[in-house]
Amino acid sequence: MLKTPAYAAASAKEPLRPFTIERRDPGPHDVLIEILFCGVCHSDIHQVRDEWGGAIFPMVPGHEIVGRVKHVGDQVTKLKVGDLAGVGCFVDSCRACEPCRANTEQFCERGMAPTYNGTEMDRKTPTQGGYSSQIVVAEHYALKIPAGLDPAGAAPLLCAGITTYSPLRQWNCKQGDRVGVVGLGGLGHMAVKLAASMGAEVTVLSTSRAKEADARRMGASAFEVTKDEATFQKLAGRFNLIIDTISAPHDYNAYLGMLRPLGAMVLVGVPPEATPVGAFSLIAGNKRLAGSMIGGIAETQEMLDYCAEHKIVSDIEIIPVQQINAAYERMVRGDVRYRFVIDSASLAAT
Amino acid sequence: MLKTPAYAAASAKEPLRPFTIERRDPGPHDVLIEILFCGVCHSDIHQVRDEWGGAIFPMVPGHEIVGRVKHVGDQVTKLKVGDLAGVGCFVDSCRACEPCRANTEQFCERGMAPTYNGTEMDRKTPTQGGYSSQIVVAEHYALKIPAGLDPAGAAPLLCAGITTYSPLRQWNCKQGDRVGVVGLGGLGHMAVKLAASMGAEVTVLSTSRAKEADARRMGASAFEVTKDEATFQKLAGRFNLIIDTISAPHDYNAYLGMLRPLGAMVLVGVPPEATPVGAFSLIAGNKRLAGSMIGGIAETQEMLDYCAEHKIVSDIEIIPVQQINAAYERMVRGDVRYRFVIDSASLAAT
Repeated sequence: MLKTPAYAAASAKEPLRPFTIERRDPGPHDVLIEILFCGVCHSDIHQVRDEWGGAIFPMVPGHEIVGRVKHVGDQVTKLKVGDLAGVGCFVDSCRACEPCRANTEQFCERGMAPTYNGTEMDRKTPTQGGYSSQIVVAEHYALKIPAGLDPAGAAPLLCAGITTYSPLRQWNCKQGDRVGVVGLGGLGHMAVKLAASMGAEVTVLSTSRAKEADARRMGASAFEVTKDEATFQKLAGRFNLIIDTISAPHDYNAYLGMLRPLGAMVLVGVPPEATPVGAFSLIAGNKRLAGSMIGGIAETQEMLDYCAEHKIVSDIEIIPVQQINAAYERMVRGDVRYRFVIDSASLAAT
Repeated sequence: MLKTPAYAAASAKEPLRPFTIERRDPGPHDVLIEILFCGVCHSDIHQVRDEWGGAIFPMVPGHEIVGRVKHVGDQVTKLKVGDLAGVGCFVDSCRACEPCRANTEQFCERGMAPTYNGTEMDRKTPTQGGYSSQIVVAEHYALKIPAGLDPAGAAPLLCAGITTYSPLRQWNCKQGDRVGVVGLGGLGHMAVKLAASMGAEVTVLSTSRAKEADARRMGASAFEVTKDEATFQKLAGRFNLIIDTISAPHDYNAYLGMLRPLGAMVLVGVPPEATPVGAFSLIAGNKRLAGSMIGGIAETQEMLDYCAEHKIVSDIEIIPVQQINAAYERMVRGDVRYRFVIDSASLAAT
């Protein structure tokens, strides 16, 4: 077993502190990755505070991992020592069910093994995430980080990137489409960059004008304020696709009104309560309200390759792991542009 | 102007009674249709009782019209005297906007002219529906009833048929798909017949077993009772597509749980209140909640041709127009298998 410095929460009420975990000895199909950077996802906070229930402690969060391969098992073919590699939101799945065989391992019928706050497929061994100095993962569940992608800026692609890339692909975002992005945070800023790179005309819908300059720099051609009721009339019937990244309560029907006929609104944010949806909001115009959850391994690799080709990374603020609790407080206030990324070298000081 | 016997409601509180309307003299692009049969849609009741607001009185309902062409204008090419023709839910649209040009006239940006309880595109002349002996309509908005379709059984295809055919096509219903149909009424029984004809394995979801034999005769291979909570566990993750025809309040989230990953539930019924939808009901499994509203003229013709080829008509009970008020009462009680159709010859007795 490999002793590994990490940062963990001992319970839902405690801050993260230095902690030592053990990684398994790499098997023939495993790779050992020395972690360089780990993005800080809003879901890290929800889980470490047990806001979704069922949290497993001690918990080492982190599922936006980029590092360098230090060792490969003798059956490994996908990666070699020295390669840059990534790990996203899950580290295993049953590999046999229909969703696994269809490259949608995130929907594994036995339940995929999340990167942290869950267990391996043995349903016993807890998994621990990327706020740590190294990780051991089966090669199929590791990603190749293409040359030319900044490793720190690429880390958030493993969750925020694939979470927004996948719905844009599922709903065939293309040249000339009008895409609305609701909320400009960690997810929203990736949605803007990706949709603009696909040739869409992107409108950011935000509660204030504070981030307008950023949105335009990222590729948005319009910016509208949702606190102003007139925005919903002005934009009625405008969008082919809306990517809704908001986790605060909001009226889906008002946003559905901004879709063109046959348009889709895709939820990637999770408001705390269910939202009332009027049947006629969907029936009038054959509209679609959809959800999207990360992506499979093949699609995540496709997204990374796409981002390398289009020179897309996340806008980040690099922090040492010692600042993680303060970073959480800033994230809860919405004070991050647009993703914190832990410099894993800082773990050596713990 | 053409004096035309009809049945109309003078207000939302009154029963339908004999009434005389005037149809316009046919223009060069118009056809005059002698109505043979008119289906009775549940939306006729909602509108005649002003349950959706904005009702225009006197109102002659009816938008499931089949008749015989008696006269054609000198520019008409689509139909000739003696042809069987149909009229569905709308009789005109702007013919110029993007939805009209895309053969989705039902989403006309200027608003289509509904067959009744609305106005012509002049926004002044009230339209009157098929509880009448004849109708004049621009040829583009008339359908050809293919040879071999029983005219009375074909009438409900103009609304109930296209309302269920269109979502099955939009969501690519195909051989081997598992399709759930929620509710076995006028819409549901058409959904069962159509989905089964496309090769799907159809399960009817109903509040009781009362209609099980009918459902199996129509092509369903399974029948499940939704009053039993265990049904939702048993069928978790089962369906590629659910067609939801229910207008009573029900929990969409429970039904979304029966979808496979990437599955869709399409609403064609309109519950009186908005229904709370949890974001995670959609995000877990990239599921889709969609609406669908009738279909364009081209798709309606495609549906009629498809039904002729597959020998599909509605299960009907033919009534004289004098029984319409009693028929409404039976429909409100759910006591119709599965569509009333008015024999328009009975109007001669009024």
